[in-house]
Amino acid sequence: MRRTRFDTWPCSIARTVDLAGDWWTPLVMREAFYGARRFDEFQQRLGLSRNVLAQRLDRLVEEDMLKRVPYQDRPVRHEYRLTEKGRDFFTVLAAMIRWGDRWLAGPAGPPVELRDRATGLPVDIAVVDAKTGRPIDIREIVATPGPGLPQELARTLRKTTAPGSSQGDSTRCE
Amino acid sequence: MRRTRFDTWPCSIARTVDLAGDWWTPLVMREAFYGARRFDEFQQRLGLSRNVLAQRLDRLVEEDMLKRVPYQDRPVRHEYRLTEKGRDFFTVLAAMIRWGDRWLAGPAGPPVELRDRATGLPVDIAVVDAKTGRPIDIREIVATPGPGLPQELARTLRKTTAPGSSQGDSTRCE
Repeated sequence: MRRTRFDTWPCSIARTVDLAGDWWTPLVMREAFYGARRFDEFQQRLGLSRNVLAQRLDRLVEEDMLKRVPYQDRPVRHEYRLTEKGRDFFTVLAAMIRWGDRWLAGPAGPPVELRDRATGLPVDIAVVDAKTGRPIDIREIVATPGPGLPQELARTLRKTTAPGSSQGDSTRCE
Repeated sequence: MRRTRFDTWPCSIARTVDLAGDWWTPLVMREAFYGARRFDEFQQRLGLSRNVLAQRLDRLVEEDMLKRVPYQDRPVRHEYRLTEKGRDFFTVLAAMIRWGDRWLAGPAGPPVELRDRATGLPVDIAVVDAKTGRPIDIREIVATPGPGLPQELARTLRKTTAPGSSQGDSTRCE
């Protein structure tokens, strides 16, 4: 049974969840980020069934996150390489790593440390407003309709009270 | 049938996916960020079944992302408010918004624009290394074992070739 589809919703969260929430998908991408290219590498590292892996890889190629590139002629064999879109998805995983390290790692501490390849120094992931450099804090943000929000939804957007102490207008990502 | 559990894996991505990949969960959190507090608000905004919503809210309370707070005595009625852990989860959704706006929004453009509550200026989400202020780029990062990685996994970590043009050591988040 196909679950509810979120990819057609006018919401970047819903669309990303539709792709990333495909359970194994972010973990397949993780392995690609950490250097996996060949089917068997993904399969051995993740220990998932070949059938499920093949489906996930097909979806990621279809979505232009990975591209299939032949690395051998006879017989033809392919490997999976990150596209620019796929590489940029690491920012989403980085935000997950930051949050997971902070709130889910427990007393054992973070399982993995990211380091700058050139300097070897630990990377301190932050999600910020590039304009001000300040960390993103929902209490300081309101969401307003963007150009991609269908008129009929923009019209029905209700004003809500934002979380936190201050009152303000905020509209929802429909 | 319960899907594969990722919450016990020593990986902050897997743990966050286990929580966030619960399909509706990030969207319930989105509504909380945009001001929803009461069961009916969540239900009307998302249009999901009361049964599924109740499960998701229970999970989020159990995970300390939301807390149940009584707002009425007779009969007792509760609303759901963000905890600090829950509020911080907006950084993960912000990274999704950034990536989704960039790669999935299409010609219509972003459905929603985030603005600074105080200045009204658009927020330009970026995932950066707080130390240097530079955008996170997987080609410049290696993953090394952290304190929370079980010994037996750290021992078997294989060195892999990182994606991108430069060669280097990178180990995987097991």
